[in-house]
Amino acid sequence: MNNFNFYSPTYFVFGKEKENEAGKYVKKFGGKNVLIHYGGGSVIKSGLLDSVKKSLSAEGISFTELGGVVPNPRSGLVYTGIEICKKENIDFILAVGGGSVIDSAKAIAIGAVYEGDFWDFYSGKAIIKNAVPVATILTLTAAGSEGSSSSVITHENGMVKRGTGSDLIRPVFSILNPELTCSLPAYQTACGATDMLAHVMERYFTNTKDVEITDRIAEGIMLTIINETPKALANPNDYEARANLMWAGMVAHNDICGVGREQDWATHQMEHELSGLYDVAHGAGLAVMFPAWMKYVMHHDVMRFAQFAVRIWGVEMDFQNPENTALKGIERYEQFLTSIGMPIRFSELGAKAEDIPELLKVLNLGERTMGFFVKLTVEDARKIYELAV
Amino acid sequence: MNNFNFYSPTYFVFGKEKENEAGKYVKKFGGKNVLIHYGGGSVIKSGLLDSVKKSLSAEGISFTELGGVVPNPRSGLVYTGIEICKKENIDFILAVGGGSVIDSAKAIAIGAVYEGDFWDFYSGKAIIKNAVPVATILTLTAAGSEGSSSSVITHENGMVKRGTGSDLIRPVFSILNPELTCSLPAYQTACGATDMLAHVMERYFTNTKDVEITDRIAEGIMLTIINETPKALANPNDYEARANLMWAGMVAHNDICGVGREQDWATHQMEHELSGLYDVAHGAGLAVMFPAWMKYVMHHDVMRFAQFAVRIWGVEMDFQNPENTALKGIERYEQFLTSIGMPIRFSELGAKAEDIPELLKVLNLGERTMGFFVKLTVEDARKIYELAV
Repeated sequence: MNNFNFYSPTYFVFGKEKENEAGKYVKKFGGKNVLIHYGGGSVIKSGLLDSVKKSLSAEGISFTELGGVVPNPRSGLVYTGIEICKKENIDFILAVGGGSVIDSAKAIAIGAVYEGDFWDFYSGKAIIKNAVPVATILTLTAAGSEGSSSSVITHENGMVKRGTGSDLIRPVFSILNPELTCSLPAYQTACGATDMLAHVMERYFTNTKDVEITDRIAEGIMLTIINETPKALANPNDYEARANLMWAGMVAHNDICGVGREQDWATHQMEHELSGLYDVAHGAGLAVMFPAWMKYVMHHDVMRFAQFAVRIWGVEMDFQNPENTALKGIERYEQFLTSIGMPIRFSELGAKAEDIPELLKVLNLGERTMGFFVKLTVEDARKIYELAV
Repeated sequence: MNNFNFYSPTYFVFGKEKENEAGKYVKKFGGKNVLIHYGGGSVIKSGLLDSVKKSLSAEGISFTELGGVVPNPRSGLVYTGIEICKKENIDFILAVGGGSVIDSAKAIAIGAVYEGDFWDFYSGKAIIKNAVPVATILTLTAAGSEGSSSSVITHENGMVKRGTGSDLIRPVFSILNPELTCSLPAYQTACGATDMLAHVMERYFTNTKDVEITDRIAEGIMLTIINETPKALANPNDYEARANLMWAGMVAHNDICGVGREQDWATHQMEHELSGLYDVAHGAGLAVMFPAWMKYVMHHDVMRFAQFAVRIWGVEMDFQNPENTALKGIERYEQFLTSIGMPIRFSELGAKAEDIPELLKVLNLGERTMGFFVKLTVEDARKIYELAV
C-alpha cells in the first residue's frame, strides 16, 4: 500500500427536506454574506431556490444570486462570480445544483481571493492557497463534487476543459436530499450513474498490489450503482434507490475508494476533450470512452480485469483462459451502459472519426504520457479514440 | 434510508515512518503545549516516544508526558490527566498508543475544559460541549478510536464500563503507520480483528431496509478483515496485511459503514460488563458474546443472516431452507474466531456461569431494553449470556 493522506472534512446532512436547514448550517460554518450560485430555471420552478433564500433570511444572512451555470461549466460565468464576490464582500458561496454548479462555485471561491486570473489554477500556473468557503445543496447525483477536492471548468477561449484540486475547496457542508433528484430525467440519471462508476473505475485499475480494503470498498460502491440505477430509471420516485445512488456518488469521489494506490484518470482526460468539442454530457462521453480504454489496456493486467468481471458483473471465472473472463466483464459493462440508455460508440454521441486529429490536438499530449495503469502516448490515445468509433 | 449526518473531519496521515511528522501536524492544527499520553513501556522501548518528542521539539512545541494507560482504561488516570491539563495549560493532547490510550485522551480532553466530574459525560448526566483538541499516533489496530467520535472508560468505583460520544472528540489528525503494529503479539492482533469485525456487525444487523451502499461497504470491510488477519498472524511483518487491517479498523468505526440506518450495539453493552468484571481483552469478550447474540436473534430476520453467510462466509444459499444458510454463517464465523486463536465460550475466557447474575446486575437494565435489531430485556440478556457459557 502506498503512503497517503486522507482528509474528508465535509459535514454531510442527508435526508428528506434537509434543504430547509441551509440557513442553520451556513450560520454554523460562519457565512454572513452569501453568494447563491445555481444553474437554470429548474431550481426556481421547483421552489428550491425560494426555500433556500427563506432559510437564509430566517437566520439573518444576506445574499446575492448568480444563476446560469451550464453543463460543462464555463469560464465566463466564473469571472462574473469573482467580480460579484469582490464587489459585494461575499464571505461564503452556496452552490445549489449538480456538479457543474458546484465546480463553478469552487472556481469562483478560489478566484475571489486571488489577484491573478483564476484560470492559473486550472492551467497549472498557480497552486491554490486560499478560498472562500463553499457549501452545497445537491440536486443531481453524478460528479461527486459535493465531497471532493476537485473542480473542472471549460475555458471559452478554445473550449479547453481543465481541472484543479485542493483540500481548500472541499465543501464545508453538503446537504443531500434524495427527493430533489427524483425529478431528474432518465438520461441525466443514467449519465450520473455512468460518471459515478467511472470515478470508481479510474481508481480501481491500478498497478499497486494488495490494497484489499480499497478494492473491496470500490467494489461495494460499483455493485450499488449497478443495482440501484435500473430501479431509479424504472421508478423515478423510488426514494431508496435515489438515496443509495446519492450517497454512492459521494463516496465514489471523496477518494475513500482510491487511497493507498496509484490511480489512472486517462479516460477522464480523453473524455474531457470529447465533451469539450461536442458539448455532450460528461457521463455519456465516459460511456463511450471507458469500454474503449478497457479493451486497449486489458492485456496489461488480465487478472485485474478478470476480478472486475467476476466480482462486479458476476461472470464465472474461466480458469483455463482468464482473458475470456476479462473480455466478458467488459462486454457486460457495455451491456449495462446500453440497458440504461447510454451511448457506447462515437456515432451514438454525434462524434465523428474524422475529428480524432482535432481531439488529439486539444489533448495536447506532445511527448508526455497520460494515465498510470498504462502510461499512454498520443499514439495510444489515437488508437483508443478509434476503438470508440 | 434514514436521515443522517456524517462528519469525519480527521486528517489521516498513513504510511511508513509518518510518526516523525507528528510535530509538523501538531503545529498545523494549532498545538503549542502538548500532553503526550501513552500506555506501558512498549512505546518507550521501541523508541517511538523518543521520535515523537524529537519531532515536537524540532517544531518548538513544549510538552508534558503522562503514561500508564491500561487496557480497559481507568478513571483514575483520567483524573490525573485532567489535573495536569488544568495546571499546565495544556492546549493539545497527543495520544500515542491504541484504543485505550486514545479513549483515555478523549476523556481527559473533555474533562480538562469542564468544571464538574468528567464521569458526568459517561453516566449520561452531561453533554459534551467543548474539548481540548486530540490527535493520535496509532500503534494498535482494533478500536477505531483514531477516527471515531466515541470513548469508553471504566470507572474504578464499581468497575463500571461506560461510553460517551461527540464529534468534538474526533481526533483532529491521526498518524497511522502500519509498521508500528508489526510487533503486536498474535493474541492482540486477533483481538483487534475481532473488535473491528464487531464494529461492522453492530451496524450490519439492522431493521432498516434498502441501504445497499452502507451494506456493501460494510461487507467489503468485513471481507478484508477476514482475509488479511490470517496473513498478519502467519507473518507478523507482512506490511500489506498490517496496512489493510489498519485502515479497515478506521473505516469499521468512523461510521461510513453505519450511516442511514438503525444500529444495534447490544453485544458491545453485554461485553462491557464481561470485560469490566474479568478485565479480559475487549476483542476476546466480543468473540464470546457475538455468536451467542446471533444465535439468539437470528430468527428475527433469517434472510439478513443468510445474506451475511453467503456474502461474507461464502456459504452456498440453501433456497429451500434459508435458516440452514443462516446457521452455517454463524458456524463459519465461530470457526474463523477459533482459527485466529479467539475464545468463543465463557470457559475459554475464564468467565463463569455463576457470575451471570452479577453481570446482569452491572448491566443494570431494569425495565429498559438494549439494542435495536431486537430490543433485549434483562431476561433476554440472561439467555444470551447462558448461550455463551
